[in-house]
Amino acid sequence: MATQAIDSAALIRTLTARLGPGSVLTEAGDIGGYLVETRGLYQGQALAVLRPRDLDEVAFAVRSCAEAGVPIVPQGGNTGLVGGGVPYGGVVLSLARLDRIREVEAVNATITVEAGCILKSVQEAADRAGYLFPLSLASEGSCCIGGNLATNAGGTAVLRYGNMRELTLGLEVVLADGRIWNGLKGLRKDNTGYDLKNLFIGSEGTLGIITAAVLKLFPKAHTRVTAFVGCPSPHHVLKVFERLRERASDQLTAFETMADFGLEIILKHRPAAPRPLSGRHPFYALIELSSSQKDADLQSLMETLLGEGLEEGLIEDAVIGSSEAQSQALWALREDLSEVQRLEGGSIKHDVAVPVSRVAEFIEVATGACEAEMPGIRVCAFGHIGDGNIHFNLSQPVSMDKSAFLARWEHFNRIVHDIVNGMNGSISAEHGIGLIKLDELPHYKDPVALDLMRSIKRTLDPQNILNPGKVVTTRADSPAAFSETAGQS
Amino acid sequence: MATQAIDSAALIRTLTARLGPGSVLTEAGDIGGYLVETRGLYQGQALAVLRPRDLDEVAFAVRSCAEAGVPIVPQGGNTGLVGGGVPYGGVVLSLARLDRIREVEAVNATITVEAGCILKSVQEAADRAGYLFPLSLASEGSCCIGGNLATNAGGTAVLRYGNMRELTLGLEVVLADGRIWNGLKGLRKDNTGYDLKNLFIGSEGTLGIITAAVLKLFPKAHTRVTAFVGCPSPHHVLKVFERLRERASDQLTAFETMADFGLEIILKHRPAAPRPLSGRHPFYALIELSSSQKDADLQSLMETLLGEGLEEGLIEDAVIGSSEAQSQALWALREDLSEVQRLEGGSIKHDVAVPVSRVAEFIEVATGACEAEMPGIRVCAFGHIGDGNIHFNLSQPVSMDKSAFLARWEHFNRIVHDIVNGMNGSISAEHGIGLIKLDELPHYKDPVALDLMRSIKRTLDPQNILNPGKVVTTRADSPAAFSETAGQS
Repeated sequence: MATQAIDSAALIRTLTARLGPGSVLTEAGDIGGYLVETRGLYQGQALAVLRPRDLDEVAFAVRSCAEAGVPIVPQGGNTGLVGGGVPYGGVVLSLARLDRIREVEAVNATITVEAGCILKSVQEAADRAGYLFPLSLASEGSCCIGGNLATNAGGTAVLRYGNMRELTLGLEVVLADGRIWNGLKGLRKDNTGYDLKNLFIGSEGTLGIITAAVLKLFPKAHTRVTAFVGCPSPHHVLKVFERLRERASDQLTAFETMADFGLEIILKHRPAAPRPLSGRHPFYALIELSSSQKDADLQSLMETLLGEGLEEGLIEDAVIGSSEAQSQALWALREDLSEVQRLEGGSIKHDVAVPVSRVAEFIEVATGACEAEMPGIRVCAFGHIGDGNIHFNLSQPVSMDKSAFLARWEHFNRIVHDIVNGMNGSISAEHGIGLIKLDELPHYKDPVALDLMRSIKRTLDPQNILNPGKVVTTRADSPAAFSETAGQS
Repeated sequence: MATQAIDSAALIRTLTARLGPGSVLTEAGDIGGYLVETRGLYQGQALAVLRPRDLDEVAFAVRSCAEAGVPIVPQGGNTGLVGGGVPYGGVVLSLARLDRIREVEAVNATITVEAGCILKSVQEAADRAGYLFPLSLASEGSCCIGGNLATNAGGTAVLRYGNMRELTLGLEVVLADGRIWNGLKGLRKDNTGYDLKNLFIGSEGTLGIITAAVLKLFPKAHTRVTAFVGCPSPHHVLKVFERLRERASDQLTAFETMADFGLEIILKHRPAAPRPLSGRHPFYALIELSSSQKDADLQSLMETLLGEGLEEGLIEDAVIGSSEAQSQALWALREDLSEVQRLEGGSIKHDVAVPVSRVAEFIEVATGACEAEMPGIRVCAFGHIGDGNIHFNLSQPVSMDKSAFLARWEHFNRIVHDIVNGMNGSISAEHGIGLIKLDELPHYKDPVALDLMRSIKRTLDPQNILNPGKVVTTRADSPAAFSETAGQS
């Protein structure tokens, strides 16, 4: 296929005839929003944006593109943070119109949803049925379930409920040749052959196009208490975590951390936000206990455990928000952090994980290394300390030129990722590889693992038309005929 | 490779030179135990049994066999229930001597173990470190972690902690060509490319040979209360489960069921076992609540929830075992069930799953269908009702000839599996496919899924030397040269 020229116009005619003109967008004004990465880091290009309405239309579109040898970049809410949804030619396949909640099965505690459902609408549908769908992350008002699945999304509830992979029981997937795999089973146990589901989850649209999923639901939390805690160091934060994990067990539903710098920029840019503790502390923890039992005395449990921490010097100060309003105000401090960082100039970001046992050491060592490399750099370390997952972001020195700072992106990647790698960690904990870490992956990944991944990619997508140039294939691996014509489109 | 004759003697010499004569067993008296399935259903044959001592020896053995085109059947404790460990020629590769606990990382709550570790020894190592490793099943005193991984083992704690797949963070695997994939990371989050780990877990030794794993640990349960409950029907049992799931949430750590026939044969064959309730009831539930909090009042919670069930007529009678001894006595009733069934003559077994919402309906419909097909047949339905996983076993009519009954195996498989399939269920919930369900899989599995599995098998094991004739390849797919010489060995 790679040696013959592609008749793009014929493909567009075929797609328009089947999907209808409203589902095949080609005008620059209509498709512009689908071509840019959410932070403006990448500008893509595409022949067209397809907006199929159901599974059969997705399958038809993929089959047509496969026959023409034209790449397909699937997109949900286009909120990804690694450029995984940016097209370099070919078509964008938007799943946004596959947005039905197909079924809520109360006794099985499952919900069957289509890929284009907004995460928040799935949370709300579960809530209406008397259940909790626990996945929770900053973009939940606009990201889609399909993207959550394609990137194995994480967020603030992973500690207790697991990431998207653990929340998924079954999938429906359109393969690279347009065939449909119906794996929509809502079973807790199924050992009939290889685990295909987990191959597609987290593959960032490079192995198949997820169109629907059966997700797990949980009993609602009827009681909840939140605390904001100041500690002398990340090591002390980690010790507080250890104590809560042992003593509160599954009632510990979140354990987040942030450095003092993070809290200070929130308070600076959100003047309405009250300072949670009277003084400043080097590190903070945001802790949530919750329970489905209406009479669970979480307030006492939190007081006891934090009281012990205060006595032992692990904690310098703490506040407990026991009303829903107080809880929300404390959570807002954490949730606003990504947003306000933009107001502090250029930011070089790392989404990394290390074993939980080394997470405090990682923060300390990496902070020291970056500060030594560039005096005045402002480390904004925060994230899911209970998962060993730190968003180790670097804000530029106050007086530095933004673009001069961002030019050091790869240099700081190397410093931080080398430290992560030395601790047997991961250079992408929850965001994925996409475009942004494409070159970093071969640098750090076990070469045998990389070889296995490439073999699997060739097996499931021999033409390399599913999101080419992402995760394990480079742009040079893109279909040759496509590359030739893409510039002309 | 398939067309040239294999020089078995040369291979054995090569292996003996590197591993030593004590690690390459060829005498009939030495290898007999490795060739038979645990219930005597299959009798295999092998050139030799290899007993390597470490990872490098495993890799050498696999590489040598790959070069010679000789099949390898990996074995742990040889306790599997689907014939997955039975060799038809080639070599058996026993992982039993890779039995080191490599590391317990307390703060990370992980344990790194080799494939040959007995499950019970892993539970004990976790316990000594102050943690719980929750996987629990009947053969835990003799099964190996490698087999638990290869079959994605389930058991009685899946409801709360998940099956082996969910308990695993990282793997070390020897591939079909002898290369080593080091994926031994103890990370809670890692989105760097495709999920290779879950491809090997549950692949029954057909995609690679697992040599070690990083497993999750949990806070120990410091409080526990067990109840044995009599109900009018499986539908009532399911309603009791729903109530406990909602109100006890994660303190509900097990919810098992059995039909009256099961309890009666236990009491008949275990005269020392006390009858738990004064009367007989159509169905029973065995319920466990546990908590890592030392002062959790589980006794009151259990009394409240069961009291409500009694008032509403869901429960006919109940007993709560609050001491450790009482708990163990109640659990013994459940654990002895597989064993005593053997004393009731021939048994045709099904390890099936349906959505939890349909599990009572399944028991009722399938029981009716089997009793209608063969008057006098005694249905022994029991298992993990909270997971939708029923061991739907059929004991022969009392006066029937055992072999005449067992001759109807496939006939009853079809009846039961058709009902399971009609409920979008699984014909193998936790045991796997192995040999015993090899022909059933293509009958029920989605053909696209089956095609994907076969593609993956060809990609990871192009010679088909890893446990050939299991899961997705038939004996006819075995290496041709091997098949020719196997009969001569």
